[in-house]
Amino acid sequence: MKSYIINSNNQIELIEKEIPSIGNQQVLLKMYATSLNFRDLLTVEGSYGGKGSTGTIPLSDGVGVIEKIGSEVKKFQIGERVCPTFMPGWIDGTYTKEKARSALGAGEVQGVLSEYIAIDESALVKVPEYLSNEEAATLPCAAVTAWFSLFVSHQLQPGHIVLLLGTGGVSIFALQLAKTAGATVIITSSNDEKLAQAKKLGADFIINYSKTPDWDEEVLRLTNQNGVDIVVEVGGANTLNKSLNAVKYSGTVSMIGVLTGKESNVTTGKILSKKIKVEGVYVGSRKMFEDMNLAFQQNQIRPQIDKVFSFLEAPQAFEYLKSGKHFGKVVVSISERGQ
Amino acid sequence: MKSYIINSNNQIELIEKEIPSIGNQQVLLKMYATSLNFRDLLTVEGSYGGKGSTGTIPLSDGVGVIEKIGSEVKKFQIGERVCPTFMPGWIDGTYTKEKARSALGAGEVQGVLSEYIAIDESALVKVPEYLSNEEAATLPCAAVTAWFSLFVSHQLQPGHIVLLLGTGGVSIFALQLAKTAGATVIITSSNDEKLAQAKKLGADFIINYSKTPDWDEEVLRLTNQNGVDIVVEVGGANTLNKSLNAVKYSGTVSMIGVLTGKESNVTTGKILSKKIKVEGVYVGSRKMFEDMNLAFQQNQIRPQIDKVFSFLEAPQAFEYLKSGKHFGKVVVSISERGQ
Amino acid sequence: MKSYIINSNNQIELIEKEIPSIGNQQVLLKMYATSLNFRDLLTVEGSYGGKGSTGTIPLSDGVGVIEKIGSEVKKFQIGERVCPTFMPGWIDGTYTKEKARSALGAGEVQGVLSEYIAIDESALVKVPEYLSNEEAATLPCAAVTAWFSLFVSHQLQPGHIVLLLGTGGVSIFALQLAKTAGATVIITSSNDEKLAQAKKLGADFIINYSKTPDWDEEVLRLTNQNGVDIVVEVGGANTLNKSLNAVKYSGTVSMIGVLTGKESNVTTGKILSKKIKVEGVYVGSRKMFEDMNLAFQQNQIRPQIDKVFSFLEAPQAFEYLKSGKHFGKVVVSISERGQ
Amino acid sequence: MKSYIINSNNQIELIEKEIPSIGNQQVLLKMYATSLNFRDLLTVEGSYGGKGSTGTIPLSDGVGVIEKIGSEVKKFQIGERVCPTFMPGWIDGTYTKEKARSALGAGEVQGVLSEYIAIDESALVKVPEYLSNEEAATLPCAAVTAWFSLFVSHQLQPGHIVLLLGTGGVSIFALQLAKTAGATVIITSSNDEKLAQAKKLGADFIINYSKTPDWDEEVLRLTNQNGVDIVVEVGGANTLNKSLNAVKYSGTVSMIGVLTGKESNVTTGKILSKKIKVEGVYVGSRKMFEDMNLAFQQNQIRPQIDKVFSFLEAPQAFEYLKSGKHFGKVVVSISERGQ
Repeated sequence: MKSYIINSNNQIELIEKEIPSIGNQQVLLKMYATSLNFRDLLTVEGSYGGKGSTGTIPLSDGVGVIEKIGSEVKKFQIGERVCPTFMPGWIDGTYTKEKARSALGAGEVQGVLSEYIAIDESALVKVPEYLSNEEAATLPCAAVTAWFSLFVSHQLQPGHIVLLLGTGGVSIFALQLAKTAGATVIITSSNDEKLAQAKKLGADFIINYSKTPDWDEEVLRLTNQNGVDIVVEVGGANTLNKSLNAVKYSGTVSMIGVLTGKESNVTTGKILSKKIKVEGVYVGSRKMFEDMNLAFQQNQIRPQIDKVFSFLEAPQAFEYLKSGKHFGKVVVSISERGQ
Repeated sequence: MKSYIINSNNQIELIEKEIPSIGNQQVLLKMYATSLNFRDLLTVEGSYGGKGSTGTIPLSDGVGVIEKIGSEVKKFQIGERVCPTFMPGWIDGTYTKEKARSALGAGEVQGVLSEYIAIDESALVKVPEYLSNEEAATLPCAAVTAWFSLFVSHQLQPGHIVLLLGTGGVSIFALQLAKTAGATVIITSSNDEKLAQAKKLGADFIINYSKTPDWDEEVLRLTNQNGVDIVVEVGGANTLNKSLNAVKYSGTVSMIGVLTGKESNVTTGKILSKKIKVEGVYVGSRKMFEDMNLAFQQNQIRPQIDKVFSFLEAPQAFEYLKSGKHFGKVVVSISERGQ
Repeated sequence: MKSYIINSNNQIELIEKEIPSIGNQQVLLKMYATSLNFRDLLTVEGSYGGKGSTGTIPLSDGVGVIEKIGSEVKKFQIGERVCPTFMPGWIDGTYTKEKARSALGAGEVQGVLSEYIAIDESALVKVPEYLSNEEAATLPCAAVTAWFSLFVSHQLQPGHIVLLLGTGGVSIFALQLAKTAGATVIITSSNDEKLAQAKKLGADFIINYSKTPDWDEEVLRLTNQNGVDIVVEVGGANTLNKSLNAVKYSGTVSMIGVLTGKESNVTTGKILSKKIKVEGVYVGSRKMFEDMNLAFQQNQIRPQIDKVFSFLEAPQAFEYLKSGKHFGKVVVSISERGQ
Repeated sequence: MKSYIINSNNQIELIEKEIPSIGNQQVLLKMYATSLNFRDLLTVEGSYGGKGSTGTIPLSDGVGVIEKIGSEVKKFQIGERVCPTFMPGWIDGTYTKEKARSALGAGEVQGVLSEYIAIDESALVKVPEYLSNEEAATLPCAAVTAWFSLFVSHQLQPGHIVLLLGTGGVSIFALQLAKTAGATVIITSSNDEKLAQAKKLGADFIINYSKTPDWDEEVLRLTNQNGVDIVVEVGGANTLNKSLNAVKYSGTVSMIGVLTGKESNVTTGKILSKKIKVEGVYVGSRKMFEDMNLAFQQNQIRPQIDKVFSFLEAPQAFEYLKSGKHFGKVVVSISERGQ
């Protein structure tokens, strides 16, 4: 079979490999499609943290069909279409150090940019049938992250105001989920076209942060100086202070991103005086993925795909993601079969 | 001014009264409209529990305009349109015995079926402008109860399945709120026309419990034998066992109603083996009302009004509610002024 | 090896069996000691619900030493002393129908009243070293149930008031845990000697319910008419109404027991008017067991053992439990080895 | 009467004033004793944030006896001993901007370093009788902050591990409350004598951070590299990174303090990868104070008082607090009367 691995030049490289054998509680998945996250860029470039990833198959997100099952597999059958979960070790319950280490496509854990993968049945979720393979491939990391942030770390209610920073994968899924849940959405971008697209998807207010660098003050103006209920903080270290300003008293800031850095000067005094909850969100459990799928199914939410690359064009997909031109997800198709 | 009081024959009676004087922290409200709840029937009939209500002005729900303010009133101004809260003593936080006793229109606490009322400013909420007076008058009890049940006692998420019993005021508000929040709704009634109306408002599944007396089994069938996430239990004692059967493991049953009685034979073993949360819901706090209004405003939810009676027809409004023919709310209009 | 099974006469019977073989992710446990719960009585008598248990090894609770490990076992080693969890399928997170079905010693799931058992490593917890084998054998069902009730279903804080019904295993563990957590404890019994023992373990108030049949009113008197924060409801259907009376507004009733029946006439109106949370508690997850062990370790809590029977006396242990004479736990010792 | 005010030289100054008149819902309190918090130092020095405090009576914490009651006061009587709450506007429920502004002894809100104060009855709590006036005076800010952190922001359970930074007022109350609740406590200080005192109060592990500057690594070593469940972060900006290192995955960091600054370089990446909850804690509501008093009463916790100054020595009390020599609370006694 063909797989990509991360080579010692911090690039992905196509290689030939044996189709992996499976354990008793595992399945063999023929991959249909995969999608890219900003984290995958960092991993290939060697700046994601944790152990080096040289020799590892990259990417966490994908969808495939079960071609073989181990002797003790109980819940799944050959022919079913499934996504692997981002962290196979995190089924449900409390997040721990051990569960974190199971994340696919980084360190020594093989990812999904491969024609076949072997994976535990406990790390699989069925995906709603109405989704195409390309759409289904976008769910495991970005969509689950948005779900965790809005509905687990925060308890989003109709009427809440959500602030989204930029129009990357997590933000666009958060936009769609927040609108599905009856919330108000404010979204920022430096690009008017992307803001127009966000508006089409339901965003209530848009802010071009190039033209309005004090976007936090604009958020306060839009919210009658109260601030928002939750910020889905994908920016990271260098947007955090503005997020702390834009969120209301007793509000939530979901720490998700490292786009603008992993450390920065933070006005911690504001966390205290406004009683803000700043909580880390790192993708999520299989349970969250399953819950989210019910929301997708019921509301027929369609993932926003910017561009689909072929398996051989995977390196270009990485380049494209890096360019920041995308709105929504960048997908790599692997197998023609399927829907 | 004219007011209705509950007389010793368990009927409402129109009387003449002095317009009440107001305290320093109170306002004088000229009432526009009021609405009826099942609880008001029980109160007039003397079977609501608590102290007798003879001599008391009935009804908890209404909307009016501020005509006068006390010397220490800070947040409200003359001319603003507001609803009194169901329990003036419950602003926010934990529900207590003392707060429960402040409920309007029962025992010794005067209600709102009156041309004027005096009320603490801390017991007022502004209502969304897009609502008519008749619509706004329906919110304080039934809508807040539905909100408390779905979003405070339970944490409703898109994709959750909600079971609603009947098409009374609480159920219809719960239907509208649940659909706004991206949930799936199953609703029961003994009346096909009402079920058709519920379908128009977004209900996903309908069950005529006259034709399908084992509606709990039908709910299990519709949910792949899993059961629903939450039952908004307005039926009370005599529907509870079926609700315990229809709810899923780790699910929620919101105990709201006493329509079918206040005590009954209950299979408590099921609460334990399925780890069900049966939680009482008694209207709610001012904070919940305010949060709910944001949801109404953002999603332009329109309360379902079955019929509007004039002030002089108030006794007929009670009769009509008792007949059970209504779908949604029964309103009594008081003043022509306003929207 | 020797094991007991439930025979078709609803009695336990000693038989000879092959030592079970283990799967790749399993261990072989040589059992040191086991303990009995009221549920085991019901199971043997065939009245526990679920499928019949004829041919099944009874008992869920025990401790043993690992004698063999499967090829894929990662966290445990030969020679370690461990308890199996009550529901091997419930590691952490949400309780489900599937997890419920994995409970040991009932239906078709083999229990621990046996010289050896084979069990998944994911269903094991290490036990604090300071505990004897007899003490450790009492933890999996009764102690975890008490933990779940006080610290998961409820969030017990210093200063809360806990009401315990009777002096069975769950109640005594709840007494010890509640006192460790700085709470006030009220406990009932029909036996003055047992009440004196409870007092020695720290109970603040005792009520002999034979002499004070309206024990709920006595609880109200002791709490300044406010009621308690939580009732650990081991009585079940026929004590529930009194528990609903004895708990305060916004309080918790943990539904645990079926001692007095599985269904009864319940004043559901009180659940609503007092906003009581009645929540089922069914033992708990491995995570709860692990958390509880940290509490035991830190506070050196010693399980109360009433009587220890030898392996051959196991039938007498069942008789003794049935007699209701015990205070704390009834233990069956299996192997002389160990601590 | 005599009161201190903050003068334009950022010092406190004794003045003569009229005894304040009271509103209908207010009481007149003759103050027995008051206590100092680090916040009061910042306020007098003009660096606490918010509006300038010149002319304002300082201090939030104190206890007194009711000498007069307004015509509408319902819950309190002349002769009762009570504490004002830190934020009179925060009774219960959600913390808001408006509630924050009601904090005593800063900005334009008069404090308690005065022979008499007038205050709303809704801002009073009775204090346990076993406490002396000096002890009772220490509760409103530091003890409630510790309570909020451990039992509201976090849900402390027996067996949890708590990390306390330094031996100031909040830390020592947190130490006593955590031990009351059956938790393990690790505490730091640069002073071996203070660490010895902490040990006497029950601290399980002590770290001298002068001798062990990498105290976060020492905490990891003590906790088997897992980290603690909660850090009561009174240090603020410049200790936060070490706290983020010392807390476990899914742990809580309560942001309380500004001792080391209000902003600093923070490794936000760690919040994300470890899913840490960093939540601001700003004293607390009246409800929290009342709940906490029940815990004090039940467990007879005695506040640690370092030194008591007379009313005329109040300036020296501020100097002493500034010196950092104290262990526990610094008190100013006002009236000789009382216990």
